[in-house]
Amino acid sequence: MLYVTKRVEFSAAHRLYNPELSDEQNEAIFDKCNNFYGHGHNYILEVTVAGVPDITTGYVIDLKRLKKLLMDEIIIKVDHKHLNFDVDFLKGIIPTVENLAIVFWRILEDKLPSGKLYKIKLFETENSFIEYFGEETEIKTFSNK
Amino acid sequence: MLYVTKRVEFSAAHRLYNPELSDEQNEAIFDKCNNFYGHGHNYILEVTVAGVPDITTGYVIDLKRLKKLLMDEIIIKVDHKHLNFDVDFLKGIIPTVENLAIVFWRILEDKLPSGKLYKIKLFETENSFIEYFGEETEIKTFSNK
Amino acid sequence: MLYVTKRVEFSAAHRLYNPELSDEQNEAIFDKCNNFYGHGHNYILEVTVAGVPDITTGYVIDLKRLKKLLMDEIIIKVDHKHLNFDVDFLKGIIPTVENLAIVFWRILEDKLPSGKLYKIKLFETENSFIEYFGEETEIKTFSNK
Amino acid sequence: MLYVTKRVEFSAAHRLYNPELSDEQNEAIFDKCNNFYGHGHNYILEVTVAGVPDITTGYVIDLKRLKKLLMDEIIIKVDHKHLNFDVDFLKGIIPTVENLAIVFWRILEDKLPSGKLYKIKLFETENSFIEYFGEETEIKTFSNK
Amino acid sequence: MLYVTKRVEFSAAHRLYNPELSDEQNEAIFDKCNNFYGHGHNYILEVTVAGVPDITTGYVIDLKRLKKLLMDEIIIKVDHKHLNFDVDFLKGIIPTVENLAIVFWRILEDKLPSGKLYKIKLFETENSFIEYFGEETEIKTFSNK
Amino acid sequence: MLYVTKRVEFSAAHRLYNPELSDEQNEAIFDKCNNFYGHGHNYILEVTVAGVPDITTGYVIDLKRLKKLLMDEIIIKVDHKHLNFDVDFLKGIIPTVENLAIVFWRILEDKLPSGKLYKIKLFETENSFIEYFGEETEIKTFSNK
Repeated sequence: MLYVTKRVEFSAAHRLYNPELSDEQNEAIFDKCNNFYGHGHNYILEVTVAGVPDITTGYVIDLKRLKKLLMDEIIIKVDHKHLNFDVDFLKGIIPTVENLAIVFWRILEDKLPSGKLYKIKLFETENSFIEYFGEETEIKTFSNK
Repeated sequence: MLYVTKRVEFSAAHRLYNPELSDEQNEAIFDKCNNFYGHGHNYILEVTVAGVPDITTGYVIDLKRLKKLLMDEIIIKVDHKHLNFDVDFLKGIIPTVENLAIVFWRILEDKLPSGKLYKIKLFETENSFIEYFGEETEIKTFSNK
Repeated sequence: MLYVTKRVEFSAAHRLYNPELSDEQNEAIFDKCNNFYGHGHNYILEVTVAGVPDITTGYVIDLKRLKKLLMDEIIIKVDHKHLNFDVDFLKGIIPTVENLAIVFWRILEDKLPSGKLYKIKLFETENSFIEYFGEETEIKTFSNK
Repeated sequence: MLYVTKRVEFSAAHRLYNPELSDEQNEAIFDKCNNFYGHGHNYILEVTVAGVPDITTGYVIDLKRLKKLLMDEIIIKVDHKHLNFDVDFLKGIIPTVENLAIVFWRILEDKLPSGKLYKIKLFETENSFIEYFGEETEIKTFSNK
Repeated sequence: MLYVTKRVEFSAAHRLYNPELSDEQNEAIFDKCNNFYGHGHNYILEVTVAGVPDITTGYVIDLKRLKKLLMDEIIIKVDHKHLNFDVDFLKGIIPTVENLAIVFWRILEDKLPSGKLYKIKLFETENSFIEYFGEETEIKTFSNK
Repeated sequence: MLYVTKRVEFSAAHRLYNPELSDEQNEAIFDKCNNFYGHGHNYILEVTVAGVPDITTGYVIDLKRLKKLLMDEIIIKVDHKHLNFDVDFLKGIIPTVENLAIVFWRILEDKLPSGKLYKIKLFETENSFIEYFGEETEIKTFSNK
């Protein structure tokens, strides 16, 4: 197996907030990330696919096709958006970098032209990032958000 | 003269929007940067001070003091904020990277412990940035925003 | 005046070679950069435009339009090319980073939608780069290349 | 076990092309990477060795010796070269980043002064890279290239 | 499981030297890293915690709390220090990047507010780094240093 | 004129300390940079040369020769050293990044194979750097250090 990665970026706003908690609780837990109007980041998304190089092409996956998939399924929907309001597949979900990675995984899992989704790495800043390998994980969707 | 620079970061949301224009005009001019709820960036701010090294210290400016100035006067007020709503000194101003640089200059100009403000460089992303050297420039403040 | 910069990348092959010199002279001057079949780089091109922010938009130049100009006039013509063979506007020119910067300037100089071309910065690697501000400079075009 | 990594760079040209396919097929599969004269990259190679620190030195491997190994066995042979024409150990192989990683592994596997080869990571650009852990993988060598 | 990482930096001096070896042996093994008065680096420390996102917060671990832990337990004690002389928990240990990673692991292992310590990655430079996953490893402490 | 830059790195320890001041004064001025045994950095040095491209070569300066000059005159003397003790040309000078830049300028000024020294840029960290263009500046040399 080889592990091939494509890196893309998007710029978005978000607010960390749990509607079932009081304002005081939200403030205590999420601190400056709880700012009412939100704040934002230049996110970096790295998607890794595992596979064996095709004998004819030497490719595990055509990275141009992987990039197109990422642009069509994720980037166009989150870039220059507010993640709490503008993105259908994030409705009611607290947009932590953990939850974003899990949701992105579910979107990409079955859509790869070749190879198998192996890892999603998501940077909120150069100093804070998450890696997810697709283990079953629960996310709560809040209704009144 | 030597030119000493301190680099700091902040994460903020913003929306590019001129309240005197129609929605269609705003959309045509600002495109995806006009998203209603905003989007966001990890901004990088580089502030350059010009001066001669002090004979006793070998410093043009103590960078720890310059950093404290930047944190107190700018970063604490814009980090994890929405620039259109949360920042007093940006009220009514279209928060383009150009306008931000000019406003930051006006704030810092007279507050340096030593040396003279020479340049403000502000990155919105790794691929888009501005440099400003303090020439007199007009910014419009819109009232009904 | 403010100075606004857009950064784009391209990947290209090149060979440094002067057809009026002997093989020994080329080898002595250009060393490993003279490799017959060429070698290559991920070039980074930063183009800086000077101007005053428009009162209505807060923009010196719309960076989306500057990026489109760079893509249409330069990147599409040099990306994934061999600079000695595939690029009309480089025919007969030794493709040093110096000469590339001068040629790119001549292409962009009169085509800006707003603002004025101020600087071209071109990185061959992270460790070697050039800056050019448009002063009149001679480049030789070799005929039998 | 600890995992120690050395990072080195090389600049090379390559062309993606399968001589058993038609020009149309090559164009369809490899697109702009199929450019006749090639294009190029600043490749980054990260080689990871696994082992336990020596009690006397605190080293898993002396990184100066690992670097010398990488320079002698790989970098001097690929840096400032055209990978399709100039490199003995790549003759007849489609120089995708996948195939390069596999070939580099085979070269390094038995030559380490201490520790055990664990991973090869190879960046073609900041946005595209591969990781290989040495699992047996087939590469095709084409004769008439 | 998700893997959350916080990245912090510190600047320190060190000298690689084994007091039980002769000067000639130290010179032969550690070469320029054996310079009597030491040399220094801007170290980058990445600490990765594994866990499942909390349903209420969407966090595996609050990165602000992880950062505070790293600052209080490690950074404040090693930043702007000479690692051979100034740090209690490094006394008598050869300060290779391998040994530093192991010592940092032992300090952090039981102090996490949530999640489980998964990996420590430590860069001495951009080109040399180590990863450690906590397997039992022996380090020698030299008495007469 | 074109401006050509070469970037090199070195790792060194230093201590900021003025021997004519009391310990309390040194502590007050230099704070954590005054640590008795020193601390260290991975310095990045960028040297810029101004000139016109040679018609025969397309080079302002052969960057391989500029790099060799930097290695021979500066890097070999400061890399993996303690700047307060090990470097002849820094004896008695407070090794602030300002003073280092000025001393490096004096060393390089008359030794360029072609072009003219234009700028020295020196990074102590990614967040703190200085630029110097060679204006006459006084540095004090302390005798009893």
